[in-house]
Amino acid sequence: MATNRGPEIRKDAVHNRWVIFSPARARRPSDFKSKSDPNQKSTIQTECPFCAGHEHECAPEIFRVPPDSTSDWNIRVIENLYPALSRDLESTSVECGGDSAAAAVAVAGLGFHDVVIESPEHPVHLIDLSEDQIGEVLLAYKKRIEQLRAFDSIKYVQVFKNHGASAGASMSHSHSQIMALPIVPPTASARIQSMKEFFGQTGKCGLCQVRVDDFIINESSHFISIVPFAATYPFEIWIIPRDHSSHFHELDSEKAFDVGGLLKLMLMKMSLQLNDPPYNLMIHTAPLQIDSTHLPFTHWFIQIVPQLSVVGGFELGTGCYINPVFPEDAAKVLREVSVPN
Amino acid sequence: MATNRGPEIRKDAVHNRWVIFSPARARRPSDFKSKSDPNQKSTIQTECPFCAGHEHECAPEIFRVPPDSTSDWNIRVIENLYPALSRDLESTSVECGGDSAAAAVAVAGLGFHDVVIESPEHPVHLIDLSEDQIGEVLLAYKKRIEQLRAFDSIKYVQVFKNHGASAGASMSHSHSQIMALPIVPPTASARIQSMKEFFGQTGKCGLCQVRVDDFIINESSHFISIVPFAATYPFEIWIIPRDHSSHFHELDSEKAFDVGGLLKLMLMKMSLQLNDPPYNLMIHTAPLQIDSTHLPFTHWFIQIVPQLSVVGGFELGTGCYINPVFPEDAAKVLREVSVPN
Repeated sequence: MATNRGPEIRKDAVHNRWVIFSPARARRPSDFKSKSDPNQKSTIQTECPFCAGHEHECAPEIFRVPPDSTSDWNIRVIENLYPALSRDLESTSVECGGDSAAAAVAVAGLGFHDVVIESPEHPVHLIDLSEDQIGEVLLAYKKRIEQLRAFDSIKYVQVFKNHGASAGASMSHSHSQIMALPIVPPTASARIQSMKEFFGQTGKCGLCQVRVDDFIINESSHFISIVPFAATYPFEIWIIPRDHSSHFHELDSEKAFDVGGLLKLMLMKMSLQLNDPPYNLMIHTAPLQIDSTHLPFTHWFIQIVPQLSVVGGFELGTGCYINPVFPEDAAKVLREVSVPN
Repeated sequence: MATNRGPEIRKDAVHNRWVIFSPARARRPSDFKSKSDPNQKSTIQTECPFCAGHEHECAPEIFRVPPDSTSDWNIRVIENLYPALSRDLESTSVECGGDSAAAAVAVAGLGFHDVVIESPEHPVHLIDLSEDQIGEVLLAYKKRIEQLRAFDSIKYVQVFKNHGASAGASMSHSHSQIMALPIVPPTASARIQSMKEFFGQTGKCGLCQVRVDDFIINESSHFISIVPFAATYPFEIWIIPRDHSSHFHELDSEKAFDVGGLLKLMLMKMSLQLNDPPYNLMIHTAPLQIDSTHLPFTHWFIQIVPQLSVVGGFELGTGCYINPVFPEDAAKVLREVSVPN
């Protein structure tokens, strides 16, 4: 199973960055397992503000699913009690630090930072929801993004989920977060630029062209899941719409339930193969305020990153990552995981 | 002490990236402490290959300091037993994965990956060395970089140190690493581009202009230490030559011993204030193969990042970091740490 070739440096054409593949440092691809993380095992906690019955302990609710439910709810979208950005325009003022003129640029930290509680029950994680329930969570993201689009100051919305303490989750109750930003963040602008260049060279969208058998894990009616050619992290997974679509919020209900099934399958395969690792899930979409019809080159996708390795000084210093598992090997391992019905 | 203002988004003009400062999420700046990391406490290990007497268990030595020592040595520069890149030209061949043509770019993983053992004694960490001994470690980096410059294929050299298991150190014996790359990595090329733009706009080097009192921690004859205006991480420290210098390997002995003293002071202050945190240290220099006289805009520096927080999906997704401590507050705390003689 272990690849017998030398190290290789691949270019991630989507992000325009280099990744070093170094199998000499690796265990066999099938030997990767997460160390168990006791912080992520859920027990029923009576003190959790995200549990049903504790709604009054949370920051204000934005909406719930189903919308008219008074006591029983499936999903709640609420404000973050400790927001990284402020939704209060009045309170944000900027002082530019120091005299170093052009070097010191700052803008007010205006934005929205919301939380999506994915289940009323504490022990239920995203992976435990049904395919349709996962679809409903995705539709809750979509609904909130459509509300946030109304603000001219909001340029980009990042949806993300941290599962497990070592992946950054401070609450064990299953939840995700939605951050609405007054800037287009660096990863998004680099991605747009890189995919625009690819389109300029080939006349094609880079993610419409991504169907190469060696890298595919599974497929559904409207989506494929792959380990990308230049995956930054071992066993990183991308879920990509088959049809060209720039903005995540273009997702309709049929596709939401379809991708809900593929996402559940990927979470189950990752959990079985890698011993329920902590993970991060990110939705990469196009900047807001741009009409999708003008974006033939950018294509939204979901990225799932199991946390299997520690980032050190090399990665911090260079922005270049070392991945010990060739993506085609990781894809093969994940393709072959047998998931019980 | 806690800053009473709203969140602020600052632009790091050196790296051309945005950082969100969000004090609402913070403890007071003076309350930041690392949780103790038992893996980084050193005990005398008889099984450590980096200890004196175990030289034969290591990969080949490149040189030692002092150079003619047969048994007693202070520093050894050796090959990495598990190199991420291959120094063997013959063994590196590239297979391009898949049919997706222009999207699949790969180069052979040619390069060098060396280890600098900073002391023959297991319990002695970088912080425990004298100012002059730290200077000798820096001069060993310089000597090795000057050897690596001779290879036309090497475009950039990254020197880095991981201290503590959670900062990526797999060996507890104090050491650093030197990675010679066949590409200019993304962080370096973004930095060069950004500093070139700043020079174009102002006629000045961005790091020659960085002396703003609020951000300064300490100064020595030839260097200053600061918390940068848009620090990515809480309590991140930069040590910068006062005089313009593009390449780290321009460092002479006098300046090496001078910066050795300032580096030791920063490590002591960080250890006292933040409870001996795991940390990463990186030297940021200019790409090789470029004559320094043509680089009025790029300026080498040392970056020290204590590991105090977990990176989550927001940072992975956006490339944008959330720092809970304003840099001027971190600089004030570090400036005021009292270090025993």
